[in-house]
Amino acid sequence: MKNENEALMRRKIEETVFAGLPACEGALSPVREMLLYSLESGGKRVRPYLCLKFCEASGGNWENALHFAAAVEYVHTYSLIHDDLPCMDNDDYRRGKLSSHKKFGEANALLAGDALLTHAFSLAAAAFGAGEVPAGAAVRACAELSRLAGADGMVGGQYIDLASEGAQADAALLFAMDRLKTGALIEAAAVLGCIAAGADEEKITAARTFAVNLGLAFQITDDLLEQADEGNSDDANNKVTYVSCFGTKKAAALAADYTEKAIRALDVFGPAAEDLRAFAGALLNRKN
Amino acid sequence: MKNENEALMRRKIEETVFAGLPACEGALSPVREMLLYSLESGGKRVRPYLCLKFCEASGGNWENALHFAAAVEYVHTYSLIHDDLPCMDNDDYRRGKLSSHKKFGEANALLAGDALLTHAFSLAAAAFGAGEVPAGAAVRACAELSRLAGADGMVGGQYIDLASEGAQADAALLFAMDRLKTGALIEAAAVLGCIAAGADEEKITAARTFAVNLGLAFQITDDLLEQADEGNSDDANNKVTYVSCFGTKKAAALAADYTEKAIRALDVFGPAAEDLRAFAGALLNRKN
Repeated sequence: MKNENEALMRRKIEETVFAGLPACEGALSPVREMLLYSLESGGKRVRPYLCLKFCEASGGNWENALHFAAAVEYVHTYSLIHDDLPCMDNDDYRRGKLSSHKKFGEANALLAGDALLTHAFSLAAAAFGAGEVPAGAAVRACAELSRLAGADGMVGGQYIDLASEGAQADAALLFAMDRLKTGALIEAAAVLGCIAAGADEEKITAARTFAVNLGLAFQITDDLLEQADEGNSDDANNKVTYVSCFGTKKAAALAADYTEKAIRALDVFGPAAEDLRAFAGALLNRKN
Repeated sequence: MKNENEALMRRKIEETVFAGLPACEGALSPVREMLLYSLESGGKRVRPYLCLKFCEASGGNWENALHFAAAVEYVHTYSLIHDDLPCMDNDDYRRGKLSSHKKFGEANALLAGDALLTHAFSLAAAAFGAGEVPAGAAVRACAELSRLAGADGMVGGQYIDLASEGAQADAALLFAMDRLKTGALIEAAAVLGCIAAGADEEKITAARTFAVNLGLAFQITDDLLEQADEGNSDDANNKVTYVSCFGTKKAAALAADYTEKAIRALDVFGPAAEDLRAFAGALLNRKN
């Protein structure tokens, strides 16, 4: 029964992400193909899942958070395309597929990212049009998504990442960067889920605390997994990571600590957040 | 009296554009400088002006359209930054100043554009927070701005522009491209002004017709001015323009025709649209 519900959620996320694509008729149909290519790249949909789960944990019907969840996934997908560009990380591959600029050229990848980011706000607004949320909730979702994805959020984190290149980064900088670069969009997912349910401010604040701590736990675990993976040894040489700052043992303790803080923040949701607790635990203990 | 009102509008546009910047505290303050640099680059603020004027022509208080107007200007400014990037037009200068990537580097310019685009939706949403419009109007503004700026609008036009490079463009392609690349954001400005005033659908449709025709008249006039400007002769060699497609005389007639269509679309607004009529005429007869 529970597994059936999870499978349904997963299916509805995919449906909403793809049904939500812009029309791109006639001469614009190749644009649709470019957006599709990146949206299909096999991510785990962590953010949309969290969005639905926070809606549910707040006592809402998770189907009312579907457009918000898709909006966050569009922002996430755009950020990967722009991050991979030659002037940024210059990555030729993303999850085993050619990155967007390798597949379609740099200018098209730039435009595909711009299109996904722009369209995220059509999706957030469509939550009102689709009758999922009242107008006030859709406006607040647009405002939160914009703030958390923008200069004071995710884009700010990418700026810190760029600006620290070459310089000897320290742990304080890593935390500040990841808080924004990864944490802000996870926060958007959690908060938009609460907003879709009409949750009170206490729950929204708790969702923020959960997201920020989960984001850090996630990044530290990433560094630990990369360190353990012998195949990545070249890559890790010059990179400042939580493992290079704290050593394996202390980094593992930090990841556990942030996970515990994330889980503790869920207290206000009571038993309704049981799946979110399990999700946070599983993220800490994942093997890849 | 009328000139005083225009000057006040102009001043309020500048105030709202700059007061609306994201906070970018601490380590993020250089991001604020980058956004400021591009927002200060001395554009004519055509789009925000149209937004306020359509609000006024629809019987609204133009001050209620200020956040919408700023949102459209942020989208316009981001589009110039991304358009100037090496993978796009590779322009070193924009209005006599170094382009963003020449000033701050390519990666920073990419992020500055992303930040401005993202923040536009904070501004549109802030129209509700500031009490300028009801929630439903703010949601609709986000949806219209997203659609008209995105893959089915401005970004779509940029894609057509890219895709037609090298190929022998014809007049039909030019119209289709400019309809989206220039027209869509002018449409957003006009429509958001109407929405801020709570205008009915008849007025919103008329605003769209005005904007689409004005955008084409504007582009054709641009080509005519460039053709007349002997200094630009190298640049014009290979470019397909309305002048190269139709010749100077027919292009001038087309520009006048689209301007007339734009002005005729304003009938539904009655005498309240007098300034908009004058604006359209002045745009046709401009000397630069």
